[in-house]
Amino acid sequence: MNYSVAIIGARGAVGRELLSLLEKKNFPLSGLCLFGSNQDSMPFQDLDLPVHPLKDAEIPACDIAFFCATSEISKKYIPLFLEKGSLNIDLSSAFRGDPNVPLVIPEINAKEIAGHKGIIASPNCIVALLALVLSPLMSVFSIQKVIVTTYQAASGAGEAAMNSLIAETKEFLETGCLQSDYFPVPYAFNLFLHDSPQDTAGYTEEENKIIYEAKKILSAPNLSISPTCVRVPVLRAHSMSVHIQCRNPVDIKKVRRILTQTQGVCFTSDRFLSPQQAAGKEEILCGRARLDHFDPRCFELWIVGDQLLKGAALNAFQIAEHSVGLYQDSLLST
Amino acid sequence: MNYSVAIIGARGAVGRELLSLLEKKNFPLSGLCLFGSNQDSMPFQDLDLPVHPLKDAEIPACDIAFFCATSEISKKYIPLFLEKGSLNIDLSSAFRGDPNVPLVIPEINAKEIAGHKGIIASPNCIVALLALVLSPLMSVFSIQKVIVTTYQAASGAGEAAMNSLIAETKEFLETGCLQSDYFPVPYAFNLFLHDSPQDTAGYTEEENKIIYEAKKILSAPNLSISPTCVRVPVLRAHSMSVHIQCRNPVDIKKVRRILTQTQGVCFTSDRFLSPQQAAGKEEILCGRARLDHFDPRCFELWIVGDQLLKGAALNAFQIAEHSVGLYQDSLLST
Repeated sequence: MNYSVAIIGARGAVGRELLSLLEKKNFPLSGLCLFGSNQDSMPFQDLDLPVHPLKDAEIPACDIAFFCATSEISKKYIPLFLEKGSLNIDLSSAFRGDPNVPLVIPEINAKEIAGHKGIIASPNCIVALLALVLSPLMSVFSIQKVIVTTYQAASGAGEAAMNSLIAETKEFLETGCLQSDYFPVPYAFNLFLHDSPQDTAGYTEEENKIIYEAKKILSAPNLSISPTCVRVPVLRAHSMSVHIQCRNPVDIKKVRRILTQTQGVCFTSDRFLSPQQAAGKEEILCGRARLDHFDPRCFELWIVGDQLLKGAALNAFQIAEHSVGLYQDSLLST
Repeated sequence: MNYSVAIIGARGAVGRELLSLLEKKNFPLSGLCLFGSNQDSMPFQDLDLPVHPLKDAEIPACDIAFFCATSEISKKYIPLFLEKGSLNIDLSSAFRGDPNVPLVIPEINAKEIAGHKGIIASPNCIVALLALVLSPLMSVFSIQKVIVTTYQAASGAGEAAMNSLIAETKEFLETGCLQSDYFPVPYAFNLFLHDSPQDTAGYTEEENKIIYEAKKILSAPNLSISPTCVRVPVLRAHSMSVHIQCRNPVDIKKVRRILTQTQGVCFTSDRFLSPQQAAGKEEILCGRARLDHFDPRCFELWIVGDQLLKGAALNAFQIAEHSVGLYQDSLLST
């Protein structure tokens, strides 16, 4: 059976990765509709596919719609696609908090896909990487508290942010001038707190997303998560340092053994795991599993992963594969 | 009274800052001897001072010698300078672990300067910034545990690392090639674990320095510190995210009040405190004091500070001022 697919936000950094995954992994297509604000065409296999602006009157009846634009676009258009009978895989945060919408990382909770009512949410990029590592550990250790400190690449803010990092860096190298084209502060050779709105307690929306979404995906209402989200002048792939506190003393060799066997995770003894190494990789990289010097219940990890792949497009693509029952076949073919 | 001063490693990034501080702050000099491997001269006031190679036979008798070269240079030459009667202010890690050598951040433990036996150590750059913030908090709160995750600039590895970051970035922007000239992995638009040697427990020398030195300076043998040290593609000024756990619930307003009154710290509500803002500033910047969402005994902070100034040259300069009793005068004159 083949499926008709729509990508909303096809020309963005995530949309392009999705298109590339559909092609590379031979997703069985009967049709492909691309939507985006910029109307140029995009190459796909031997074709040159047109990119349409999204207008209320022309919602197509497709099997699967990937939403990789803003929350506002998802909120406005997913109800219209729902009316036409699409399964909507939403990469924005619009529906992640809805108790009727499964929030899915297939390696963790693929079984929740079955209960969908036309919308499945794909998580925040940091959550996608973090939860993938925490999940197998939580089934063995009683994890009480997670402190996560991020090093987030420009790709997390989209194509424009990546271009701005390059342009600002060129400008600085040529003229010595630091300017801020896209973010509140200059980005060239600089870093700063995630620029999502901050609540009265002092946490950013990005940090609160991590708390809420990780707890939902991991089915861990009592897990304590303390996030700090920082944008760094890296183009693609996020990194994070994670401090984990368990109820009981931890066997660090067991941590390493579990992560070595975790699907989607490449656990390694390479101490220099860097975003440049993770960029373009489907697997996320994890290393530096080490016991805390002072508390045998605590240990630390270092995680890097491609924000555009497992952090976004790949996870959404895997949700689609699972939804149409393809995943076993695709596993067999690789 | 005027003092004869020597700078060992004068042409390095820290040495040049020291020279500039001596000039800017009108340190009362009777002589100034510069040592470095590169023999070019350096401008100072209206003079052009020669830079000499350091040879065993020609150790000068000076009042104060600043060592801002490697640990090996400090270990070899400080004993020779001691014989000539110098007070040696060591910015390397050579003597920081010696129980007979005071490890000093003047705002915290200036009183220990009086007990020196010819050597005073200035701490690791991360410790200089972190301890300055922790010290006043520890006198009010019973701090049990500190988790510190760093974003360390190229300046921490010296002039050559800064030049390499610029050269690698130019190369990448011009050719798309990522190369690694200086560190084990490419530095342009990339980040990686601190490259100091790693112990069998998985901690780097830099991380172990933070634990040892912070405990020594803060006189806190029971403090638990969990550090993760990462180099980021920033030229100058280090950043760090700090999670602090106390014995009892914390009044976060009190934390803010204390830090607002802390000498050497500029506490601010600016959420975008960045290394670019901290570069060239004598004060370190601190913000984002926020209570943990789940544990009222815990709170978080964001700290940025110029690695070359308070992280190195400025702290050593302040030690010299205190040593010769100038500090009160210099406070009056600013």
